[in-house]
Amino acid sequence: MIATNAYAAINSKGSLAPYSFERREPRPCDVHVEILFCGVCHSDLHQVRDEWGGSIYPMVPGHEIVGRVVRVGSAVTRFKAGDLAAVGVIVDSCRTCNNCKMHLEQYCEEGPTGTYNAYERDGKTLAQGGYSTHIVTDERFVYHISDKLSLAGVAPLLCAGITTYSPLRFAGVTSGMRVAVIGLGGLGHMGLKFAHAFGAEVTLVSSSPGKEADARRLGAHNFLLSTNKDQMKKFSSYFDVVLNTVSANHDYAPYLKLLGMNGRMMVVGLPAEEPRVDPFDLLKNRRSVTGSMIGGTTETQEMLDFCAEKNIVADVEVIPMQYINEAYERMVRSDVRYRFVIDLASLK
Amino acid sequence: MIATNAYAAINSKGSLAPYSFERREPRPCDVHVEILFCGVCHSDLHQVRDEWGGSIYPMVPGHEIVGRVVRVGSAVTRFKAGDLAAVGVIVDSCRTCNNCKMHLEQYCEEGPTGTYNAYERDGKTLAQGGYSTHIVTDERFVYHISDKLSLAGVAPLLCAGITTYSPLRFAGVTSGMRVAVIGLGGLGHMGLKFAHAFGAEVTLVSSSPGKEADARRLGAHNFLLSTNKDQMKKFSSYFDVVLNTVSANHDYAPYLKLLGMNGRMMVVGLPAEEPRVDPFDLLKNRRSVTGSMIGGTTETQEMLDFCAEKNIVADVEVIPMQYINEAYERMVRSDVRYRFVIDLASLK
Repeated sequence: MIATNAYAAINSKGSLAPYSFERREPRPCDVHVEILFCGVCHSDLHQVRDEWGGSIYPMVPGHEIVGRVVRVGSAVTRFKAGDLAAVGVIVDSCRTCNNCKMHLEQYCEEGPTGTYNAYERDGKTLAQGGYSTHIVTDERFVYHISDKLSLAGVAPLLCAGITTYSPLRFAGVTSGMRVAVIGLGGLGHMGLKFAHAFGAEVTLVSSSPGKEADARRLGAHNFLLSTNKDQMKKFSSYFDVVLNTVSANHDYAPYLKLLGMNGRMMVVGLPAEEPRVDPFDLLKNRRSVTGSMIGGTTETQEMLDFCAEKNIVADVEVIPMQYINEAYERMVRSDVRYRFVIDLASLK
Repeated sequence: MIATNAYAAINSKGSLAPYSFERREPRPCDVHVEILFCGVCHSDLHQVRDEWGGSIYPMVPGHEIVGRVVRVGSAVTRFKAGDLAAVGVIVDSCRTCNNCKMHLEQYCEEGPTGTYNAYERDGKTLAQGGYSTHIVTDERFVYHISDKLSLAGVAPLLCAGITTYSPLRFAGVTSGMRVAVIGLGGLGHMGLKFAHAFGAEVTLVSSSPGKEADARRLGAHNFLLSTNKDQMKKFSSYFDVVLNTVSANHDYAPYLKLLGMNGRMMVVGLPAEEPRVDPFDLLKNRRSVTGSMIGGTTETQEMLDFCAEKNIVADVEVIPMQYINEAYERMVRSDVRYRFVIDLASLK
């Protein structure tokens, strides 16, 4: 067994604290990765605090994991010791349903296995995440990453990156299209970078005028202040795709009106209160609202390769593990540009 | 000028009553049609009673029009006197915007001209509908119909027909796909017929168990009682396309859950209260909600040709014009299978 240092939540009320446990020895198809960096996703906080219900403790959060391969199982073909490697939001799926066969494992009909806050497919082993020094994962859910990029900046690609890359690809974003990204947080800042890299004319939509300079630096051609009704009206029926990254409670209506003919609002945020949709807004221009959840294994690797080619990483603030509780407080206040990433050297 | 007998609403409170007015002489591009039958759409009632606001009186409703060509203007090429012809929900559009250029005139960026309860593009001439003996319309918005079908049964194709045909085509419904149609009214019964004709496995979803026999007669392979939670659960993630024809207030959630991977809910109903959407439902299976509004001129002709080939007409109850106020009362009680159609011989 592999002795592993981590930070864990013991219940929904307390802080994260040091925690030690053992990872399994690699099975034939497993890759053992020594974790170097792990991104801090807002969903970590939701689950630590049991805000979505059903949280399982002790919980070692973290699903934006990069590191170096220590050992591989006897049947592993794609990795060898010494390789850089990454693990994302899911670590297993049924592998036999239609969606798994299409490498859309995130939509596994039996439900995929989360990287943490989940039981593995044996139904009893608790999966634990990347706020830890080691992870052992089936190679299907392990990805190659480039040694040319900042490893800390790569970590958030595994969730914030693929969560925005996949819907933009699904909506067919390409050169010359008009894309609006709503919200400039961990997801939004990646959405901007991808839409820009795909050749679109990109507009950042935000209620915070202070975000304009950063939006433009990150690739936005335009900035649209959502609280300014005249500006919003000026851009009505303008966009081909709206990427909605907002998880705060909000109404879809003002953003739906931005969509032109056959326009699609791709939704990746999860507001607690169900947004209302005005059917008149949907009927006009034959608009759509479509959900999208992370990405499958094939597309995740494609995204990482694309980032290596285009030199795309997340903008991050690297922190030691011991800073995590303060980082959570800052995240709640949106005081992060644009992702905290834990340097796991701090746990060794 | 062409003396025309009609029934009109004088204000939002009263009944429809006999009304006489004059249609314009055909301009070079106009077709003068003597109306034989006109369908009674639920939206006629909404507009007569000003339930959507902004109604213009006197109002001659009716946008499911079939008849015979009396005369054509000098520049008309597609019609001649004696031809059967139809007019639908719109009678003009700007013709220059991108959507008009693609023959998606119903999404005209300047707004299409409704067949009634609208001003023509001169901004002052009141457009009047098909509860009348004659209509004069630009040939772009006039359609050929087959002499092999019941003319009364063809009339509702111009609204109920194209409103359900277009979204099923847009969603790519084809042989072997699983389609659910929600609601068995004027729209739903046409949706059933089209989904069946496209080769799909069709399920009618209704809260009324009494509709099962009719649903099966109209082409449904399955009947799903929406109030039965076990049945609804059994069909979760089952369908490729859900055609939502319901205009009564309802929540999208239980129907969204019926959609499988990349499944689309096509919305054609207009509930007064904005439905809520649970983002978790959207994210699962990458589901979409998409609006659809009638159809453009090219697709409307395609639909009419398809109906002629497949022998598809609406199920109708033919009424004299003088019965219209009673028909409205029955329509409010959903006491019609499935469309009233006025025989305009009753006005001559």
